[in-house]
Amino acid sequence: LEIRSGAVGVGKGMPMGFIIIAPGINTEAWCRHLLAADPGLDLRVWPDSGDPATVSFALVWQAPPGELQRYPHLRCIASLGAGADHILSDPQLPAGVPVTRVVHDSLSRGMSEYVLATVLSQCRHLWRFQQDQRRARWRRRLPMETAKTCIGIMGLGQLGADAARRLGQHGFPVVGWSRTPKKIEGVAAYAGDNQLRPFLARSQVLVCMLPLTPATRDILNAAAFAALPRGAYLINVARGEHLVEDDLFEALTDDQLSGACLDVFREEPLPESHPFWHHPRITVTPHVASITHPGLVAPQIVANYRRVQNGKPPRNQVDRQRGY
Amino acid sequence: LEIRSGAVGVGKGMPMGFIIIAPGINTEAWCRHLLAADPGLDLRVWPDSGDPATVSFALVWQAPPGELQRYPHLRCIASLGAGADHILSDPQLPAGVPVTRVVHDSLSRGMSEYVLATVLSQCRHLWRFQQDQRRARWRRRLPMETAKTCIGIMGLGQLGADAARRLGQHGFPVVGWSRTPKKIEGVAAYAGDNQLRPFLARSQVLVCMLPLTPATRDILNAAAFAALPRGAYLINVARGEHLVEDDLFEALTDDQLSGACLDVFREEPLPESHPFWHHPRITVTPHVASITHPGLVAPQIVANYRRVQNGKPPRNQVDRQRGY
Repeated sequence: LEIRSGAVGVGKGMPMGFIIIAPGINTEAWCRHLLAADPGLDLRVWPDSGDPATVSFALVWQAPPGELQRYPHLRCIASLGAGADHILSDPQLPAGVPVTRVVHDSLSRGMSEYVLATVLSQCRHLWRFQQDQRRARWRRRLPMETAKTCIGIMGLGQLGADAARRLGQHGFPVVGWSRTPKKIEGVAAYAGDNQLRPFLARSQVLVCMLPLTPATRDILNAAAFAALPRGAYLINVARGEHLVEDDLFEALTDDQLSGACLDVFREEPLPESHPFWHHPRITVTPHVASITHPGLVAPQIVANYRRVQNGKPPRNQVDRQRGY
Repeated sequence: LEIRSGAVGVGKGMPMGFIIIAPGINTEAWCRHLLAADPGLDLRVWPDSGDPATVSFALVWQAPPGELQRYPHLRCIASLGAGADHILSDPQLPAGVPVTRVVHDSLSRGMSEYVLATVLSQCRHLWRFQQDQRRARWRRRLPMETAKTCIGIMGLGQLGADAARRLGQHGFPVVGWSRTPKKIEGVAAYAGDNQLRPFLARSQVLVCMLPLTPATRDILNAAAFAALPRGAYLINVARGEHLVEDDLFEALTDDQLSGACLDVFREEPLPESHPFWHHPRITVTPHVASITHPGLVAPQIVANYRRVQNGKPPRNQVDRQRGY
């Protein structure tokens, strides 16, 4: 394995280092699965970077801004999740280095399951029952009827389209909205700025699954909430920057929104002092809608590492302009 | 309408009264939907029974024991839900009067949705995250993987079979157990006392959907819990009498069970002083797994009322011996 791993370029002093830069994440499982996929990997975990000049590949989750430009011979910057906005937002991001993201069935499956679980929890009032339970209060509540509860999916990329299909199969009416028109069976699809309001007007449960781009930042704002049916419910599994927090508080106070389930936040971990934690109609989950299982995606990451070592372009590249 | 409604037997002084006996239930919606189905209905709501001798039809949910024998001319005792055990358990139940239950697609659909919602909530740790939220604690937890989490359904009647199919479609491995052998596509079906243990040994999430009969009372006991895989989760949507409460507490203390979601109880409403309310690993919901929507089933109840007024046997009769 030493031979296979070292066969490319070692003689020429080509950098072989593979670094994980993921401050908030327990990297133990990542190291284990990466080494299982390539036992000879010259693996390092930030902040123990060794000589930055010997690093060719960075696996990244919310790296400190400016950190990546310290490595002069990077050939690939790989997000360890489905989103790469946390990389593209670095003002000192090295130019010309390909940025990749993880693409795997399990990501959309996991995300769709989270969306279905939270939609059903809301429709069946499971969170309210848990609040009732703390007060030993027995109060029956009629479910929101599946066939009469329209779910609006913002963002019909791989993840959004899968969630829309799954919710439709489950019996919910589903509408979708995306930048460019999409066709998904059983989903009434809207597209572009002009069709945002009619889409919102039908969304009794609004699920944000958009990529974060300049065009989608702050899209969950007072105007959007006002366009929803009264008493709508919000689920955000995309990025904290999609949501204008003050507008959410106001919409909840006005009962324009009945509640919200938030998995993503402008600052993560969500600071202890943040009012989201204790708002009675906000459910907070710790960015788990789509957790990347290291064991499932380590092989594709190592495959990309080998590709760039061999001078090939990596797979699953992100378009820096488009943002995803 | 008076004429239609009164056409049968009034001249002969035949009793026409329809009474609702449902102490714990808000009967307003029932009255509304029954009168919508038959505006001439001679409708009464217990305890305002009028002359018991003029009542021919009783719509019942957890009537006080002995109450039904006060009505000498009953032609039908109708449960307003899918279960009739609350009627059959009355030691003074009038002999020879047909007992019926409600059969409607919406009941199995609602029940399956509740089961899916609670299974997913457990697999995605949504209840634990809500507990974390109260302490402003950000702790990510890997989901239980759908394809590796075997769900065991006890009881494969109309409701159990539907839930088993739905969970299977969702990607869960499903095993089922029933008194007599059943065939359901995609479900590994076990039957009878001899196959109870091998069934339990595979059930990482055990869902009780059995009818309550002398044979199934107390079936969720220490021996059953010991036969489950360690750390299994229990969901009971059947009847409180299926569960031996002390055995559940012990299994939770020993970590043989990781938790339980209970929708039904030996005493309902669950008394304020009951320890279930405040156990950190027990989720209580107020008997809502399958709520009968009055608007959907009032027509079939009124149809049965007309049948018995016309001397025909009612539909959806319960076998008193079998118990369902």
